[in-house]
Amino acid sequence: MTDYTPTPADKFTFGLWTVGNVGRDPFGEPTRQPMSAPYIAQKLAALGAYGINLHDNDLVPIGASAAERDRLVSDFRAALSGHGLVVPMATTNLFSDPAFKDGAFTSADARVRAYALQKTMLSMDLGHELGATTYVFWGGREGTEVDASGKLLDALAWFRDSLNFLAEYSQSQGYGYRFALEPKPNEPRGDIFFPTAGSMLGFIPTLDQPDLFGVNPEFAHDTMAGLNFAHAVAQIIDAGKLFHIDLNDQKMGRFDQDLRFGAENIKTAFMLVKLLENSGYAGPKQFDAHALRTEDEAGVWAFARGCMRTYLILKEKARQFDEDSEIQAALQAYRVQDSELETLSRGFTPEKAQALKARSVDRAMLGARGPGLEQLDQLTIELLLGVR
Amino acid sequence: MTDYTPTPADKFTFGLWTVGNVGRDPFGEPTRQPMSAPYIAQKLAALGAYGINLHDNDLVPIGASAAERDRLVSDFRAALSGHGLVVPMATTNLFSDPAFKDGAFTSADARVRAYALQKTMLSMDLGHELGATTYVFWGGREGTEVDASGKLLDALAWFRDSLNFLAEYSQSQGYGYRFALEPKPNEPRGDIFFPTAGSMLGFIPTLDQPDLFGVNPEFAHDTMAGLNFAHAVAQIIDAGKLFHIDLNDQKMGRFDQDLRFGAENIKTAFMLVKLLENSGYAGPKQFDAHALRTEDEAGVWAFARGCMRTYLILKEKARQFDEDSEIQAALQAYRVQDSELETLSRGFTPEKAQALKARSVDRAMLGARGPGLEQLDQLTIELLLGVR
Amino acid sequence: MTDYTPTPADKFTFGLWTVGNVGRDPFGEPTRQPMSAPYIAQKLAALGAYGINLHDNDLVPIGASAAERDRLVSDFRAALSGHGLVVPMATTNLFSDPAFKDGAFTSADARVRAYALQKTMLSMDLGHELGATTYVFWGGREGTEVDASGKLLDALAWFRDSLNFLAEYSQSQGYGYRFALEPKPNEPRGDIFFPTAGSMLGFIPTLDQPDLFGVNPEFAHDTMAGLNFAHAVAQIIDAGKLFHIDLNDQKMGRFDQDLRFGAENIKTAFMLVKLLENSGYAGPKQFDAHALRTEDEAGVWAFARGCMRTYLILKEKARQFDEDSEIQAALQAYRVQDSELETLSRGFTPEKAQALKARSVDRAMLGARGPGLEQLDQLTIELLLGVR
Amino acid sequence: MTDYTPTPADKFTFGLWTVGNVGRDPFGEPTRQPMSAPYIAQKLAALGAYGINLHDNDLVPIGASAAERDRLVSDFRAALSGHGLVVPMATTNLFSDPAFKDGAFTSADARVRAYALQKTMLSMDLGHELGATTYVFWGGREGTEVDASGKLLDALAWFRDSLNFLAEYSQSQGYGYRFALEPKPNEPRGDIFFPTAGSMLGFIPTLDQPDLFGVNPEFAHDTMAGLNFAHAVAQIIDAGKLFHIDLNDQKMGRFDQDLRFGAENIKTAFMLVKLLENSGYAGPKQFDAHALRTEDEAGVWAFARGCMRTYLILKEKARQFDEDSEIQAALQAYRVQDSELETLSRGFTPEKAQALKARSVDRAMLGARGPGLEQLDQLTIELLLGVR
Repeated sequence: MTDYTPTPADKFTFGLWTVGNVGRDPFGEPTRQPMSAPYIAQKLAALGAYGINLHDNDLVPIGASAAERDRLVSDFRAALSGHGLVVPMATTNLFSDPAFKDGAFTSADARVRAYALQKTMLSMDLGHELGATTYVFWGGREGTEVDASGKLLDALAWFRDSLNFLAEYSQSQGYGYRFALEPKPNEPRGDIFFPTAGSMLGFIPTLDQPDLFGVNPEFAHDTMAGLNFAHAVAQIIDAGKLFHIDLNDQKMGRFDQDLRFGAENIKTAFMLVKLLENSGYAGPKQFDAHALRTEDEAGVWAFARGCMRTYLILKEKARQFDEDSEIQAALQAYRVQDSELETLSRGFTPEKAQALKARSVDRAMLGARGPGLEQLDQLTIELLLGVR
Repeated sequence: MTDYTPTPADKFTFGLWTVGNVGRDPFGEPTRQPMSAPYIAQKLAALGAYGINLHDNDLVPIGASAAERDRLVSDFRAALSGHGLVVPMATTNLFSDPAFKDGAFTSADARVRAYALQKTMLSMDLGHELGATTYVFWGGREGTEVDASGKLLDALAWFRDSLNFLAEYSQSQGYGYRFALEPKPNEPRGDIFFPTAGSMLGFIPTLDQPDLFGVNPEFAHDTMAGLNFAHAVAQIIDAGKLFHIDLNDQKMGRFDQDLRFGAENIKTAFMLVKLLENSGYAGPKQFDAHALRTEDEAGVWAFARGCMRTYLILKEKARQFDEDSEIQAALQAYRVQDSELETLSRGFTPEKAQALKARSVDRAMLGARGPGLEQLDQLTIELLLGVR
Repeated sequence: MTDYTPTPADKFTFGLWTVGNVGRDPFGEPTRQPMSAPYIAQKLAALGAYGINLHDNDLVPIGASAAERDRLVSDFRAALSGHGLVVPMATTNLFSDPAFKDGAFTSADARVRAYALQKTMLSMDLGHELGATTYVFWGGREGTEVDASGKLLDALAWFRDSLNFLAEYSQSQGYGYRFALEPKPNEPRGDIFFPTAGSMLGFIPTLDQPDLFGVNPEFAHDTMAGLNFAHAVAQIIDAGKLFHIDLNDQKMGRFDQDLRFGAENIKTAFMLVKLLENSGYAGPKQFDAHALRTEDEAGVWAFARGCMRTYLILKEKARQFDEDSEIQAALQAYRVQDSELETLSRGFTPEKAQALKARSVDRAMLGARGPGLEQLDQLTIELLLGVR
Repeated sequence: MTDYTPTPADKFTFGLWTVGNVGRDPFGEPTRQPMSAPYIAQKLAALGAYGINLHDNDLVPIGASAAERDRLVSDFRAALSGHGLVVPMATTNLFSDPAFKDGAFTSADARVRAYALQKTMLSMDLGHELGATTYVFWGGREGTEVDASGKLLDALAWFRDSLNFLAEYSQSQGYGYRFALEPKPNEPRGDIFFPTAGSMLGFIPTLDQPDLFGVNPEFAHDTMAGLNFAHAVAQIIDAGKLFHIDLNDQKMGRFDQDLRFGAENIKTAFMLVKLLENSGYAGPKQFDAHALRTEDEAGVWAFARGCMRTYLILKEKARQFDEDSEIQAALQAYRVQDSELETLSRGFTPEKAQALKARSVDRAMLGARGPGLEQLDQLTIELLLGVR
């Protein structure tokens, strides 16, 4: 029997801010002590993780001196290499400091926008120093509560200008970053620009160098908007833009919960794992979540272990699904092929159009056919529940 | 004082299916009698509308004989020209017939996909005959409840193949259609593919002829997903893809209500009208909604008149907003310009990057500044409430 | 190994309208043929169901003659007794007919209110004739879209008057019904009165004979409002008001999906089954759901079988949970008892108050304790996934 | 023309925590400085407020010495009396301290439950000292994320025990408090017990002294669950349980936004104000909201002024509504009275039941009648927009 213990080959990563979350929320004070980055590295390595991601200020406090920065970076690098971990992804904290309260790249204050560029370039320097090859943009403050401020169109242009600038910065420095844009519908802003995975896909083609940009979808973020995350990831894969992924969980239509992966939407988590595994996604799988505020440090590691175990359990179930003969027969029966019609339907010619228009169709027969989806779904549920 | 009576110059349109809605819902029988297309044309013209849109089967019942079709089309054309109305947009009903119960272009049954192509070509013929220049795709059945069916990626490919085919059909026939894709998150399917305006923007670049395709956003549809519709339209405008628009209203996070425009989200409706008017959108504004099921025919026309009046009232308020000196002063104060920093921040050069990185930033000052957004929002509310 | 095949002892029931659903929805025509009530009885009995519930018009069409009614009732009774099924619950269709379009008991038209009473009395007669002992009220049309109509307070009074009247009718006829009120937040009305299980609990004490009234909570209905259904049922049990229950499933924040039980919220379904089984609920468990519109008749029975199987699988998992020593140890550790403090905290006396106020509290210690909830939840997920 | 400037006679109140909010959120640091309670009193008095409410720790930091407490209380009392303000309501902070991370009255740790009682008694002493007559319970931490912890039924019992104890404490001390229970669906807990106004109404009858307990509904809280707040308040009024009210605003289905009253749901805010004014509610109206995090102190006072102005504007519109002859005619036409049927429908007798059952009903006529709701709603919108 599989024991579901992860290894670095599984490419599971955590942000420093995830296991490092101290349990503060809008209504309460921290419940846990901060942990140093080297300590986190040691613990995650022991659990079988592959790497650690970070915002600049997860490692180096804002306003730290150069000496302090260098010491922190050096200690962290030592810990990483000592424990065999990598830093595949880096990103910028453009949301905690009051300077960014009304946006960073989309602030109506040109000085804030310039500061956001500065901070991001410095953070890209740091990420590169740590070996990161993917750079994520999550615009936590890029949004509005007061649309009367009249900046909707300007904000999109400012955001685009900033990303174009930073892509060139990466190239001029030889960093070679691939950029992954992370959407979120709301919180902390009333409405965040580019609220869903689709919005980011739609924005990328307006950039100067669209090939450098992809999406970093997060399970909880599209789920907050009541959307099906597996559908979102399928569209991203279809567009060739799955550059990174954030796994966690969430109930629909409420605050950002950042629950342990698989804790809530078990079926969608399964569909997602199956999609990732079958589609050949080879990048890191980041758990961007945190232990419940109720937990002490032991709970933090239980949380981290649980994220990885559940992924591996679902991966094994995906394998079973593909080998279950009753399920596979149902899938085969579900699809009706017709090579003549498929030839006519693809690759337009006027003749094909005429042939299609002229065919007689038995609507009643098409409407009467039973696709067997209730049965297929029940088989899936029973496979998930471990009774097949 | 403005009297808010619409004229054709306002370019307000209604679908035949909107004022023609008979009040059937999942729990109840129709409460109103069907009305003929010519009668609807007469009534809408009298109210000041510009045009009427339709699905093929709004005018011609599915399975009608050629003679019946020609008579219905001819009667409708006579009514249109008699009342000075146009048909700017046409679309296909690919959702009512049981044949489409598991998708049209994305059905797992190749015969259904071929039938969907056939039906759409015939409907494009009809639309062209009536003068339509915009063709809308709303894929009401293009989605899933059972993702275990494993067609997520195939469905996107099938949908793309179909749109590519139909774009060429339009060209080969000389129809000159512009295609507008309409997203919706769910209902009637559990999850519909391309759930939000952003998803459609993200899909268009994957088509063979992206320039022919734009978006037909609907107020209620993005609102169902709890998204800010004015933000969605701003992104579509930014991408140059606002080909058509559907106006109505809806509470967030519930079934598709199709309420009278402005009936619920007054502030967002105002922001939207202001955005459309200020951005120079010149296309038709369709009210894709229907009278409450409680209403008789008089209620239907009260509904239609109300949609148009509220738009015109909000348009007048947008004008007032732009002329309100206190509001304009607040807007001016909200934006902080800095030409040196703006020059440095746009159009990357290594020198600009160095200069930006080297600047000292007064974070505390940036964080302390008050943008005056509460006051601006309150002024907006008071303008909306008519007490300024 | 358990085979999860239901028997009447499991007390699973279905409404005639559930398996009889023909697959019509707001955007499409029926996809299935109607089935007669005797045929449904035969099929459900073969699957192991205990009983069948009905609205008056599920069996007897509105406006049927007395002779037709008697024939339909007699045929159905013969089928029930022939197949060993019972009718534990009956209810009234007060939502399909256009007369009820703006409410039944809460219509602003006194004639509609009177008709609703008449129809319900006749339906109570029918239910009694079929042996029903529970009578459900689901007020599908009791709500508003236009609150300016000003009837909010009147509607509550009218609803109360009606229930008081009908309770006395039941007594005067010797029917002995227990009444179960079923909440729903919206759809088909914009907002339905008494939107959640709590609202019904809050309404019952205002009735003349509160002991006759309880709640019929439905999984999907509270879930539509984003609420935790297991929490809702716990409060109903705590209040002694769980008179009946409707099981199905639903994604949060969207239209009424009526999915197969356990199809979506697996963990909440498990918590609910565990709560029902452990609390000694002995009433029928009705599956108030329907097969997906995509399905043919075979899909309908797959749906019905799946509802019951999933319940039984989760019931077996609840038993495993109670016998899992690691889980039970975690539960034990989670609770901290302190008999002195518990005595002081319950049953007020001035002395206890003084003693409590005077005690010194080690806040830091209380805040530092780890309750082990992440680990407990992960163990639960692994039990659900069948890997423990 | 009314100038919408509030006076104490309007009975508008604010919590110390509302205007005192420093703008910290889950993703960012404070953006504003704390203000002292006396300073807040001075500013609110100048704006026309009636009173100030508080949690114990809004005034006295947790762990403060007796001397510090007395000084703070004395300074605050001096400011209150100097500015003519009262403290109508007090409440306990049972959510910020880590000790309460898994519940206060519903913690699984008996020591935490005892501490919650202690802290509440001391806070009740403080409230009484300041003149408060209403005591609010908002159980911010009373909920779960992990229902496998198995405490759902126990938690309800613990909560009930605590309220019963505290009601007796109030009486034994001669405080004469009326208790107002405040529901919220989620945040900061995954699911909070008693999630909606209805849940609280349903819980009160299970208490020892139900007459002492009422509800403190909050606009944003029921709105988070997508519920209609005016409907919720109507049910509370119907039950005689409107003991206090919290006004603010919120988009449905997202994090707790605590927006300025009237900033979002203008129509529902109007319906609510109309309901409060017409029903004779005479208690304080608390604005439980805060300025956007973007704002400086000037924005805080703009926010506070805006809350009160919008209420007064809507109150004036409610008066206009009641005097608008077209609207009143529409309302009259909406209701159909029938004294014979109304007599038969109320106050059961067997004879009335027989008479009702025997009447013939013209269903078609009842279904065909048009209630004029689209027109009424449009008139309401135009009144709100100030164009009537």
